[in-house]
Order: sequence, then structure tokens, then C-alpha cells
Amino acid sequence: MVRALDWVAEPPTLRLIDQTRLPLHREFLDVRTVDALVDAIATLAVRGAPALGACGAFGVAIAMIQADAEGWDAARLASEVDRIRDARPTAVNLAWGVDQVRPLMADGVDAVVAAAAKLTADDTAANRELSRLGADWLLTRTGKTRLRALTHCNTGALATTGWGTAYGILRELHERGALEVVYADETRPLLQGSRLTSFELSEDGIPHVVQVDGAATSTILRGLVDFAVTGADRIAANGDSANKIGTVGVALACQRAGIPFLIAAPFSTVDLGTATGDDIVIEERPDAEVLSLGGVQVAPDGVRAFNPAFDVTPHDLISAVVTELGIVEPDAAADERRMARLLG
Amino acid sequence: MVRALDWVAEPPTLRLIDQTRLPLHREFLDVRTVDALVDAIATLAVRGAPALGACGAFGVAIAMIQADAEGWDAARLASEVDRIRDARPTAVNLAWGVDQVRPLMADGVDAVVAAAAKLTADDTAANRELSRLGADWLLTRTGKTRLRALTHCNTGALATTGWGTAYGILRELHERGALEVVYADETRPLLQGSRLTSFELSEDGIPHVVQVDGAATSTILRGLVDFAVTGADRIAANGDSANKIGTVGVALACQRAGIPFLIAAPFSTVDLGTATGDDIVIEERPDAEVLSLGGVQVAPDGVRAFNPAFDVTPHDLISAVVTELGIVEPDAAADERRMARLLG
Repeated sequence: MVRALDWVAEPPTLRLIDQTRLPLHREFLDVRTVDALVDAIATLAVRGAPALGACGAFGVAIAMIQADAEGWDAARLASEVDRIRDARPTAVNLAWGVDQVRPLMADGVDAVVAAAAKLTADDTAANRELSRLGADWLLTRTGKTRLRALTHCNTGALATTGWGTAYGILRELHERGALEVVYADETRPLLQGSRLTSFELSEDGIPHVVQVDGAATSTILRGLVDFAVTGADRIAANGDSANKIGTVGVALACQRAGIPFLIAAPFSTVDLGTATGDDIVIEERPDAEVLSLGGVQVAPDGVRAFNPAFDVTPHDLISAVVTELGIVEPDAAADERRMARLLG
Repeated sequence: MVRALDWVAEPPTLRLIDQTRLPLHREFLDVRTVDALVDAIATLAVRGAPALGACGAFGVAIAMIQADAEGWDAARLASEVDRIRDARPTAVNLAWGVDQVRPLMADGVDAVVAAAAKLTADDTAANRELSRLGADWLLTRTGKTRLRALTHCNTGALATTGWGTAYGILRELHERGALEVVYADETRPLLQGSRLTSFELSEDGIPHVVQVDGAATSTILRGLVDFAVTGADRIAANGDSANKIGTVGVALACQRAGIPFLIAAPFSTVDLGTATGDDIVIEERPDAEVLSLGGVQVAPDGVRAFNPAFDVTPHDLISAVVTELGIVEPDAAADERRMARLLG
């Protein structure tokens, strides 16, 4: 299984596979400065909410090592850590990863690295657990033994610390012999579906086809799939979920077709401080991502794009939010703080 | 206004602007053989249901001239005309255009050319009329004086014989000072939105932004537009409408948002011989359209695509079908042959 990130001890390095170069090129970025990390996050060389969480945690160590080498004062170090924390606005996991290890900075860089490594291992374990729960839920709910799936964007090992979230459920179903085929949305503008999900599905030997995002609704309405599942970048307390642009259309089609739409994410993606999806900031990204393809301009000169990177799926369109702590069925729960119930 | 096609008398030529080369290159194809015409249709150098209707009609003249030059017998000529008629399966207009002039073949090529030219002029007039009707309907229904629109694919002068269908309504609103902005879906896989609609909007000085198709649902749910309008390739008797892949998702989002979703097309697009959308054949196009972009492969080797060119929007998601003969509101009409009522 290809991994989005690895920590190399000597010299201290966060090694990222450059996801902008996949699937045709396997190249790695050795990150040893805050600038390099922020740049890798901004250009989406590393992306995916759980992977960003790990980057945030290891990023604190990177900043501490750079501070030591370059003689930063405490204020400069704090502001550099904030810069990592805020490198992308929508994914809550990035800030979460930073915040998990920040209290350990006084204990030195080894303590931070150890905490980041534990957080990474815990995330992988969480993915395994939520994948089991999600697969069980799906097989029970649908009453079928072989399922046809649709997914959007990339949520596999490349988006996480390993295994995957929504993709993890697909992987789990595949290992149980219960996955017939995956329809993978290509996921414009940056094609995480055709470039990354298809890459992982091919590596794992899972039968699949790639389709344009506009095909998702009719694939669902024509009865070609039994469920759809995606990840999330931030889940509000009421279950509203921000995810890659195009997700809410998939959820809406599932509602009309009467098939389950699932969100799969580690509980670190749940932001109980955000009451509803209305409070989630939606990142808008550069026009050029939409207006050129493979370096080729596709629109006339002077045209502007509208390029929100995420959309919000209202909780009533979500059959189940699957986390390692358990499953919430937002559509069925009247309690507005429905996600908090997972904390017991 | 740029035109999709023109008939040149001497030597007899169907001149097409090569839409695969727009917007960066204005190149023309001079079509004088059936092979060249079928190839232009198959590669989408010319596309758009009404434009294909005109190509079908002029194509009969092309076949007759080639038959004369190459000494074809009547059976060969008939089979070549059938080849034009069947060059694309979903758009009814192509067959309609052929069938309109076929009875005139016995009268000679001049009669066929004259009929094709009249059919072309009639189509443009129909576009003008349906655009007026559609703009009136929208301003009345919304009660607003300035509208924000969303459209999918290209339905302007490039898709028709001039003026446009869904785009014609936008043009009409713009001329009345009633159009604030257009959100143009890029329309993967072949980017008719970013390449062609944006080109026409730019030429016409209409404010607009281009967005990925996956953004359409959230643009609608966030309240950024007042209505959406698209063309159609075939409208069944009950109002179910086939159009470019991605259309039904737009319609579904409009239903949830409670804003109008319109289909705009000349009555020649209505196929009363097709009872419902279930009977419409959906063309599947080559994998490469999805798996490579600008000549660059974007998915791993060996991956397959699912590439339906069209989807079907069920009539209950359509607020109004706008034709030059009048408007049908399929959602409100119980009669299963609701489109036939336009014939009086």
C-alpha cells in the first residue's frame, strides 16, 4: 500500500509522495522547512483530511527543528506553527493535528515526534475500525452480499495515514468478497478520483470504472450502484458535512434513488464547535485549476472561474456518518448535537 | 455571432467551424463527402441537437452530389443517407433533419438544398420565439427583474443554426437588461461549457463564471442562482428529456432549492414516438474522452471509463419545457402525452 507520508528520523524529514504527479510518476518530497510544508499543502502535493492531520502534527516538529537551526524566538515559532495550522481553511484535521501536539512543545522535539507518530498510528487504527463498522452497516442495511459502490474524490491510503476512510470501507468489503464494482468519480478540478482513487483501486485489484462527476447522478438514478460513500473534511455537530466539491450532488441523488449515502471519517473530523454546515468556511481555490487542463488553456482569455473546493451536505441527506467511535444516522436523529452522542 | 454551419453554393460545401478547436483556434471544415460529415459528427466538430438537424438535411444534399460524382446506385445512396441519419443515436434532430428532406430527393439536389436552407432559417426563427417565451415565463414566475442563471453544456449559436435555445433565453434576458450573471458548467468530458459557452458569453459581453460540473449542486443550494436552463437532445412524449450528462443533477438540485429548472428546445426535439425517458437510447462514448485531458493521460494504465454522453431528466424535475410552439409544465400536467398538447 502506497503511503501519503512517512517520518524519516535522520535527518528529520517528513517524506511525502507528490500526489500532483501521480499516477504516472512516483516522486517524493522531502520536507524539512515550514515553507516547504505549507507549499506542499497549498499545492495539494499532500491532501486528504486525515493525512493533513498527521502533517499538522509532524509539521510542529519540523517548525521546532527549523526554529533551533535558525534561532527563531518563541513568537516566531508560534506564528510559523499557526501558518501550518491555517494552510487550508476547510479541513478541520490540519488544525486538530497541530493542536494535539502543541502542548508537548515544551517537552522537546522528540516528544512531539513521538506524539505525531502515535496520532498517525491511531488514525490508521481508527480507519480500520470505522471500515469494519461501515461494511457491517452496509451489508445489514442493504441485505445484499455483493455491493456496487460509488465514491467521490480520494479517501484511501493517499488521503489518510494508511488504509483509508470511505475507501477503507470499500477495501474492507473487497477483502470480505462483498464488493462487485466501484464507480469512481474523476473529481474535477484536480482529478483525485481518476488520478489517485483509480491508482489505489488498480493496486488493490478492485474492479472499477472512472466516470465524469456529471455522470454520478444518472449512475445512481439508473440503479447501477447500491450505495455511495465519501469522506469528509469537517463534520458539524448536527451532522452537516463538508467534503470535496460535488459530494452533495451524490447525496441528493442517493436520496431520490432510495439508497444509502454514507460519510466515513475519523472522529477527529467532527468539529463539535461548529453547530451546522452554515458555519463552515468554504475554501475558494485559484481560477487556473478550472480554466486549464494539463497546462492547456480551455477557456477564452479573460474568463473567470468560480472554484469552491468543497460543498456542504446537509445532514438530512446523510444515511450514516461512520466513525471509529460508532455510527450516527443524522437523517433519523432529531437531536441537533447528534454527533456529540458518540462521545457517550 | 459565430455560426456552427453554413452552406456554400460553389462548389457545394457544408462549411463547419471545428468546435473541437475552439476557443483558441477558429478553423473550418469544408465537408463535401458523407465520410467527412459522419466523421465531423462523430468527433463532435459539429454538435448540438439543432445544428445536427441542419447537418442531417444538408447531408442528404452532400450524399446526392457524391452519388452523382461517383456513380452510386439508389441502394448505395439510401444506405449512405442512413449512415448520416444514424451517426449519433441520442439526438433526435439528426434523424429529423434527414427525414424532412428525404422525400424531396426525387426532385433533385437543388430542391433538397432549398429545403435544408428553409429548415435552417425556420430553426433560427424557432429559437428566437422560444427565447422570448422562456424569458417572459421566467420573469413572470420569479417576479424578479434581474436574474442569475446556471446552464450546462452549450446551446448557443454553435449548437444550433443561430441564436440558441437555452442560451437563446439567456441572450434574450441579456438584451432586456434582465440578466445579472451566468454560472456556466464546464461540462466534462469535452468541456463544451468552458470552451464554447464561455466563448459565446464572452463574445456577447455577458458576465459569467465557469465552474466544474460538481459545483452546480452547491451553487444552486447556496442560493447563488435564480434558475437553471439547459437544452435537450430528445424529449419524450411525457416530457422526460435526454440532455448532456450532468443535466439531471442540475434539475434535482433546482427541485430541492425550489427554483425553476427549464428545458429549452425547438419542437423538432420532441419525439412523440418515444413514450418516456426509459425508451431513450443513451450513447456511450470512448473511454479516452474521460481518461485523458489535452492529450495527457490522467488515470493509470489499463483503467476503464464509464462514459455515457447523456442522461435523462424525469419530467417531474422539469418546471417548464420551452418550445417555439409554447410551454409545457410537465411537473404540473397529469396527461402522460403532455408534450403532444403543443400541437393543439
